[in-house]
Amino acid sequence: MLQNIRVVLVGTTHPGNIGGAARAMKNMGLTRLVLVEPRVFPSPEADARASGADDILASTQVVASLEEALTGCSLVLGTSARDRSLPWPMLNPRESGVKVVEQAAQGLEVALVFGREHAGLTNDELQRCHFHVHIASNPDFSSLNLAAAVQVLSYEVRTAWLAGQVPVNAQASNQPARESELATMDEMEGFYAHLEQTLVAIGFLDPEKPRHLMARLRRLYGRSEVERPELSILRGILTETQKAARGEPHKRKDQ
Amino acid sequence: MLQNIRVVLVGTTHPGNIGGAARAMKNMGLTRLVLVEPRVFPSPEADARASGADDILASTQVVASLEEALTGCSLVLGTSARDRSLPWPMLNPRESGVKVVEQAAQGLEVALVFGREHAGLTNDELQRCHFHVHIASNPDFSSLNLAAAVQVLSYEVRTAWLAGQVPVNAQASNQPARESELATMDEMEGFYAHLEQTLVAIGFLDPEKPRHLMARLRRLYGRSEVERPELSILRGILTETQKAARGEPHKRKDQ
Repeated sequence: MLQNIRVVLVGTTHPGNIGGAARAMKNMGLTRLVLVEPRVFPSPEADARASGADDILASTQVVASLEEALTGCSLVLGTSARDRSLPWPMLNPRESGVKVVEQAAQGLEVALVFGREHAGLTNDELQRCHFHVHIASNPDFSSLNLAAAVQVLSYEVRTAWLAGQVPVNAQASNQPARESELATMDEMEGFYAHLEQTLVAIGFLDPEKPRHLMARLRRLYGRSEVERPELSILRGILTETQKAARGEPHKRKDQ
Repeated sequence: MLQNIRVVLVGTTHPGNIGGAARAMKNMGLTRLVLVEPRVFPSPEADARASGADDILASTQVVASLEEALTGCSLVLGTSARDRSLPWPMLNPRESGVKVVEQAAQGLEVALVFGREHAGLTNDELQRCHFHVHIASNPDFSSLNLAAAVQVLSYEVRTAWLAGQVPVNAQASNQPARESELATMDEMEGFYAHLEQTLVAIGFLDPEKPRHLMARLRRLYGRSEVERPELSILRGILTETQKAARGEPHKRKDQ
C-alpha cells in the first residue's frame, strides 16, 4: 500500500537533501522517490546523507517536468507556505497523512510534492496540486530543511498507516464511498487543456488577459476529486460546446 | 511556555547534526539546546546546517554529564529503540508532545533527550528518563538521523502546543480555509437549471432521455462546495455557451 505513494522533489539544489529525504522516506517505509530537474544527481553527498537508503537512490526516477512526475496520480499534495494570493484547500501534516493513506489503500497513486530549498513551488506547480500542505512552524523562522519536511510528512503517513492497521480507525474516515475510480492527473491535465481551448472558442477566456480563470477552475474541480465517468461527461460537454462555437449543427449521440 | 522545554543531545558525533537539530527546534519554536560531551562544538558545519538558527547555537549550553543537563527538570523523555532488556513506560511521539506541553504549561521544566548517532542512550542514561519515546519506523531500517528525530519530536510538541492555543471546535474542523462564502442552495439550483438548459441547447442532453446526467453533475459540483465567485464563473461560461449555440458572435466582456 505504501508503494502507491511517491515523493516528488522539484528543483532540489543540494544533493545532501536528496540523500536526507531518501533516508527519511526509508525510515518511514516509503520507497518511491522522483526528482524533477535536480541540480546534481547522483552525487556522493546524496549517498552519504542517505546513510544506507541506497536502494531508494538507486531506483530514483529523474524527470524533466512536474507533469511527468505526476503521471498516473489521482491525488497530489504540495507543500506550501501559508499565504498565497489564491487560497487553496489546505491540510495540515496530520490530515495529509490520513488522506494519503485513505487513497493509497484504495489502490490509487498519490504524490507528495516538495519545492525548491529557497523558492518552494511556483504558483503553476501549486495549481497542479489538489491540496496544499502547510507545516505549522515558527512564523519568525518558518522554512524547514527539505529533508526535515519530508521527514514530518513521511512520519504522518506512517502514523496514519499504522493506525489503519487497527480496525478502529477505518471508521474514522469521513470519505463518502466512491462509485468509480478517480481520474488521474494526466487525464485531468487533458481536461484542463480542453476546457481552456473551449473557453477561448466561446469567447469567455481572453488568452491575452487570462487573469486567474484557469487557476480558479483547477481549484474548483481539484477539490471535487473527479471520477473517471464524470470526466467523460465533462469532456463530452466540451466537445459539443466546441461544435456549437464552430456553428456546427449538433447531433444527439443516439440519433 | 515552550521556553520550559530543553532539547538534550548526548555524545553527538557529527556537528552537522547539532546544526540540523538547532534548525528543527527553531522552526518549531523551541529555543534551548544542551549538549552533553559533543565530539566537536562549536563548528562551521553546525553553523552551516543551522541555516539561520545561530541564536540557538550561540546560547547552547555544553555540559559534562547528562545529570548536569537535566538539572531542574520535572519530566524527562528519552528516545529509545523499542526493545530494551528492562521494559519502561513508553510513549509514541504524539503522546510525548501532549505530555511535554501539559507539564511545561504548568511551569515545570521538561527535557527531551536524544542519544548518540550509532549507539543511542546507554541503559544508565535511559534509566534517568521518566518515559522512553519510540518513533515507530521501518523495522528493516529503523534508525532515524538525529536531526530528523529532533524534528519529529519538536513537531509533535508544537502540534500539541498549537492544539492547546486553539479552541477545541476550531480544531475539529477539517475544512480548508475558504476564500469566499459558499453559494447558497437556491443559487446552486439556479445554476443547475441554467446548466440543464445549456446542455439541451448544445445537444448534449436529450430531454426525452435524460438518463442520470443531471444527477451525476449535481453530485460532482455538490462535492466541491462551490463558492459564490466560482459560481459566477460557471454561470458566465454557460451564458457564453448558449450564445455560441444560438450562433451569436461572441464578445469579450472587456472589449
